[in-house]
Amino acid sequence: MRLGRGVEWGIHCAALLAELGPGETLSAAALALKFGLSPSYLLKHLKTLTRDGILVSVPGPAGGYRLARSAARISLLDIVQAIEGSGPAFRCCEIRQHGPERLPPAAYPRPCAINAAMLRAERAWRSALAAESVADIVARFHAEADPRSVAASREFLARYRRPQRGRPERATV
Amino acid sequence: MRLGRGVEWGIHCAALLAELGPGETLSAAALALKFGLSPSYLLKHLKTLTRDGILVSVPGPAGGYRLARSAARISLLDIVQAIEGSGPAFRCCEIRQHGPERLPPAAYPRPCAINAAMLRAERAWRSALAAESVADIVARFHAEADPRSVAASREFLARYRRPQRGRPERATV
Repeated sequence: MRLGRGVEWGIHCAALLAELGPGETLSAAALALKFGLSPSYLLKHLKTLTRDGILVSVPGPAGGYRLARSAARISLLDIVQAIEGSGPAFRCCEIRQHGPERLPPAAYPRPCAINAAMLRAERAWRSALAAESVADIVARFHAEADPRSVAASREFLARYRRPQRGRPERATV
Repeated sequence: MRLGRGVEWGIHCAALLAELGPGETLSAAALALKFGLSPSYLLKHLKTLTRDGILVSVPGPAGGYRLARSAARISLLDIVQAIEGSGPAFRCCEIRQHGPERLPPAAYPRPCAINAAMLRAERAWRSALAAESVADIVARFHAEADPRSVAASREFLARYRRPQRGRPERATV
């Protein structure tokens, strides 16, 4: 069982976008630059997050991406489900009803105990992801990360946020 | 994110083997028959479960598979990890350390908060799977399943368990 790389990308992008001021955006190219990602591949995930109502895409040459709502109201589960889909990891194929010796469907009125147990475990995973917001991640970054890393992030945002304010001479990506 | 079908197969087979008496086995062919599975594909998973110490393979023409220890001491996590591996579903690629603006490795002394949160959620999933044994599944089957289904399972075991006792005339698979 493995989550796609898009989950890590999506959460990191959302955590960075959470640091923007009101009305500001970052371009897909800037986000890709920050994390050394393939711009076209990242764009696919940014579009998915936008379609799922987690990001907003602002059009135009000075446009880009921003969070669609406050970071405190975007959970890790929202991002994981946007990228990976919301279906269960365990897909019961009802093999108890297969084979030449199977009984008529009416003999299986209740869900299979195996499926129920597997889905119970997934609910524990989803609950833990739902309890963690992008704002929590940002708060932990500021509380725990090395000061150089926090300063580098602040500097990056100052350089690439759109609209640029007070620094028209700086290149935008 | 998706678990392979082998997880469902492995748990169902273990739950059926849990109903055998001491020293009894079921052949891979009988297990495949019961659940309508491809024998060769199922065999691959049975071998994996045997290698992981969950099943024992008894050689010889009257041999087959049995549980390697009591069903109460085999958790769903044991089977999931045997089939799917024990690595995390979220594989952090440390993209915070990528890109042209990355800092030297010493600027990232602590684990990424995103990775930590994702692994915390996986621990909740694993704990729930570890808390559920094959014996629990069997007990729930007997308590909740339709009596026809319980009777069919009992009859199947009487027919296919090895060594056959008292019914030498019945065909074995």
